[in-house]
Amino acid sequence: MDRLPKCEANYVPLTPVTFLKRASMVYGDRTSIIYAGVRFAWHQTYQRCRRLASALRSLNVGKNNVVSVLAPNVPAMYEMHFAVPMAGAVLNTINTRLDAKNIANILRHSEAKVFFIDYMFVPLARDALRLLMDDLQKSGSPEMSMPLVAVIDDIDSPTGVRLGELEYEQLVYQGNPGYVPEEINDEWDPIALNYTSGTTSAPKGVVYSHRGAYLSTLSLILGWEMKSEPVYLWSLPMFHCNGWTFTWGVAARGGTNVCIRNTTAEEMYKNMALHKVTHMCCAPIVFNILLEAKPQEHRHITNTVEILTGGAPPPAPLLEKIESLGFHVVHAYGLTEATGPALVCEWQKEWNKLPREEQSKRKARQGISILTLADVDVKDVKTMQSVPRDGKTMGEIVLRGSSIMMGYLKDEKTTSKAFDGGWFATGDVGVIHPDGYLEIKDRSKDVIISGGENISSVEVEAALYRHPSVVEASVVAMPHPKWGESPCAFVTLKKKSEKNHGNVKEEDIIQHCRKNLPHFMVPKKVQFMEDLPKTSTGKIQKFQLRALAKTFVISEDGNSSNNNSTQFNREQPRYYHQTQEQSLALSRL
Amino acid sequence: MDRLPKCEANYVPLTPVTFLKRASMVYGDRTSIIYAGVRFAWHQTYQRCRRLASALRSLNVGKNNVVSVLAPNVPAMYEMHFAVPMAGAVLNTINTRLDAKNIANILRHSEAKVFFIDYMFVPLARDALRLLMDDLQKSGSPEMSMPLVAVIDDIDSPTGVRLGELEYEQLVYQGNPGYVPEEINDEWDPIALNYTSGTTSAPKGVVYSHRGAYLSTLSLILGWEMKSEPVYLWSLPMFHCNGWTFTWGVAARGGTNVCIRNTTAEEMYKNMALHKVTHMCCAPIVFNILLEAKPQEHRHITNTVEILTGGAPPPAPLLEKIESLGFHVVHAYGLTEATGPALVCEWQKEWNKLPREEQSKRKARQGISILTLADVDVKDVKTMQSVPRDGKTMGEIVLRGSSIMMGYLKDEKTTSKAFDGGWFATGDVGVIHPDGYLEIKDRSKDVIISGGENISSVEVEAALYRHPSVVEASVVAMPHPKWGESPCAFVTLKKKSEKNHGNVKEEDIIQHCRKNLPHFMVPKKVQFMEDLPKTSTGKIQKFQLRALAKTFVISEDGNSSNNNSTQFNREQPRYYHQTQEQSLALSRL
Repeated sequence: MDRLPKCEANYVPLTPVTFLKRASMVYGDRTSIIYAGVRFAWHQTYQRCRRLASALRSLNVGKNNVVSVLAPNVPAMYEMHFAVPMAGAVLNTINTRLDAKNIANILRHSEAKVFFIDYMFVPLARDALRLLMDDLQKSGSPEMSMPLVAVIDDIDSPTGVRLGELEYEQLVYQGNPGYVPEEINDEWDPIALNYTSGTTSAPKGVVYSHRGAYLSTLSLILGWEMKSEPVYLWSLPMFHCNGWTFTWGVAARGGTNVCIRNTTAEEMYKNMALHKVTHMCCAPIVFNILLEAKPQEHRHITNTVEILTGGAPPPAPLLEKIESLGFHVVHAYGLTEATGPALVCEWQKEWNKLPREEQSKRKARQGISILTLADVDVKDVKTMQSVPRDGKTMGEIVLRGSSIMMGYLKDEKTTSKAFDGGWFATGDVGVIHPDGYLEIKDRSKDVIISGGENISSVEVEAALYRHPSVVEASVVAMPHPKWGESPCAFVTLKKKSEKNHGNVKEEDIIQHCRKNLPHFMVPKKVQFMEDLPKTSTGKIQKFQLRALAKTFVISEDGNSSNNNSTQFNREQPRYYHQTQEQSLALSRL
Repeated sequence: MDRLPKCEANYVPLTPVTFLKRASMVYGDRTSIIYAGVRFAWHQTYQRCRRLASALRSLNVGKNNVVSVLAPNVPAMYEMHFAVPMAGAVLNTINTRLDAKNIANILRHSEAKVFFIDYMFVPLARDALRLLMDDLQKSGSPEMSMPLVAVIDDIDSPTGVRLGELEYEQLVYQGNPGYVPEEINDEWDPIALNYTSGTTSAPKGVVYSHRGAYLSTLSLILGWEMKSEPVYLWSLPMFHCNGWTFTWGVAARGGTNVCIRNTTAEEMYKNMALHKVTHMCCAPIVFNILLEAKPQEHRHITNTVEILTGGAPPPAPLLEKIESLGFHVVHAYGLTEATGPALVCEWQKEWNKLPREEQSKRKARQGISILTLADVDVKDVKTMQSVPRDGKTMGEIVLRGSSIMMGYLKDEKTTSKAFDGGWFATGDVGVIHPDGYLEIKDRSKDVIISGGENISSVEVEAALYRHPSVVEASVVAMPHPKWGESPCAFVTLKKKSEKNHGNVKEEDIIQHCRKNLPHFMVPKKVQFMEDLPKTSTGKIQKFQLRALAKTFVISEDGNSSNNNSTQFNREQPRYYHQTQEQSLALSRL
């Protein structure tokens, strides 16, 4: 049996590019993309992608070259997910909320050969390119050159904004519709490069292979049970792990991509109603956008919209509210290094019999491994033994399998460290419940160790969120003379103008926590703030809060006092375009 | 980016064995198998498979060794789909309807190391083993030895029937529950060996890789849209391409396998009702079994049962009848060499608006490629060019991709011929409709060429089936002095005792065809028969009919006469056990 060799007929390298060709063959006339007044069918999308790929080849873009793009969820952004690998190159989607300095760093680190820029981000990109040029000149790197620049004008309402000489639609137009895509000879070839947001360290360039992208795509369709012909609303940025692989997945399912430029309540509701949206992904913060829609923005949803959400588990009352509007929420957990979601909280039929509150608890868990992950485990960090499946013992979540990244670009050391022992260590702390479902408790460095007990900051935060006046909450460790560490809460409150939300005091919050948490988990200090410090992707910067908490003095009897004002220097990046809702992603996704 | 190597954390060879481990971890307490009074949960199935695998290892079974099994759809048969590869070995499921000679040939050709035999087939197996021993002695093959023999007794009602010293449950009992499965180091390693039925030539041993089995499993779940927690009735023999991969697929989906020993109407209806079956696969002949159930055998179906069927498209009236009982039928096409179904007729929402008859036509097409096939095409045999997508121009169906077999065991020549030109040539003739859906017209050698026109025998048969008195029909080429060939029909009729089905004459059938077919396609001769000649898997032996048709004399004016009696020597194999419904598979599957 050893003598049966691979050949072209029985061994075709796995790549999501095949999904597009197949969609054009078997779903050719179905709508592939809707964006404002623009509509494409799958045979057109395939042709446009072939044209763009051929145009890229004629710009000398080829194997392992990086093509960067800074754009919202417009059709061009979708098409590039196929066209760039069809030219043999690697797609690098850049977080549009980064500042010019970060973008320049990414362009430099990735050695981007072409840089596509949506017209909206031309000012930001221009600054980034200037910084890059200065940088290259200063460092005297003759082997590196500036990327070619191409503007993506709005395809529905062209603006004429330009930077450099190339324009996306021109490239598509000039390309060869009969172009034969570059053969993927090895499914271990890279397809995408996504930079982490860098909450904990400098941004790292995460590389996905064709194989990993392909298998993750299948897994997520299966894990979410996305049926054929989905109408998918692009509320999740495609720059987040390639839209959690649904860029490729919608093609695999012969669905329709409903592209929107801004994730405002108005755009989302309008598109849902117009196109009978069936599926969308988003961070839980989008629930708030949907719930807080003004009456004129809101549209009634006639068919259930499936939502896949990641990151911090939405509190039960929020879940109930959003589902009462006609959404159905499935919770996931993932990270850039795992090509997006690695765990999905698959619903089990028998849970339908549970009381509502119990159902919410189940739903808020992060769930079970997607099918193409070979293994997920929770291990004691010291012994590297699996923790018992008791829903209590915390350990680090580790992953193995085809959905895990190839590694970090130009960073062998961090790569081999991340894969130490044959597992990818997530840095997240969780428990396994007796039924095999995982629940995240915290980032390992966010765990608070108080008198030898591990306290999950996420759990304390969940209790805080249950207080009716709390808008946002974040809990970190604060030095404690007796217990080593104790929890310190930072909280923003609803505006006093809102009914019943005036005059909430620290003691009220602490009382509320006493009712909802074991005593040792109750924050010893609650600090009210106007805003919490956040990264460019809207993640709370706990390191800033930790620095602040260190300045609080706690007496042994537990009373606290401030050394300092709670005002601090926020390193918020400048926003060049503010119409997109900020803070889209609370999650690590 | 080239420098990012594969490691244990990010590259795990694809194998369906991982589905079982995952099922035991995340669906551990869910029911995995139901068989009569026996019930297992997934954690038990995993443990039983580990035990059996370890027992096989202690019998010295290892990499690339073949383990053969002759059994109906009992729990042991299911478990072996995981346990055998977990020992590093290759599973060979043998068609239980073969005769002793064929089975002996398979055991010899595959060099089976262990031969598992369900107690029901002990007499047949004993004969096969005797033939094998004679054969080995005669040919003096000292390097080959007889396989170890193990009986699978009925797990629900043990009979005590034995052959040799080993027994399945004893092996499971003796095995080590903590056994660590053999690592699959290369996903291109073989997992299964399935012999073709040999309608056209000697049986060939088709080898599947772990990779192919894994990817086909995912594709078929997706193509059929099988949701999680299916309750799957084993009406399709697991020896048919490993149950069209649903042996592995039900584990991937955390479903329940409802095993039955016999596909009688009574067993099927009883189990459907008792366990709320949601899914089943079968050849269209099973529709007749279900429709012809006696009143005391029939049970009312409360939830829709999804049926995936393959082979000859069921005629529209049959489809309508079966669906009116609460079944929902999806049509597929495949072959052993493609790991089962390669095309699935995915339903498109817009077809719901079509008239009923038009819907039936759509449903009877073979459909579109499953997701992991890289390419499906219909090619002109002479020019190897793709035929136009007009639903008319016939060509040979060719396939490429991960679902295609590794090759034929010990048959390099036939293997390389099958893969000639980088495609797997199916030998089936079809058309592509403008919407990209394929429709099979015939086996290439069954096409009738009349006056230069290609006539699909399948199309003529479909017309014949529409006649109310026709039970079975088969159409082959008959020599014709003017047209070269013309269609000749062999027909079995309903019993005369049935109302309105007496006295049908050749002329009546020809008249019926004239109304339903173009003139040149109408059979020039209709021969009534008591039974049509069939292979052991119930496929009609057209070569016998062709031989018969050659004896018919046609005058230039088109009148025919028989040279011969229509009695012929049927090479029907002896059936050792007749309670299973014969002729399960009309299809090539």
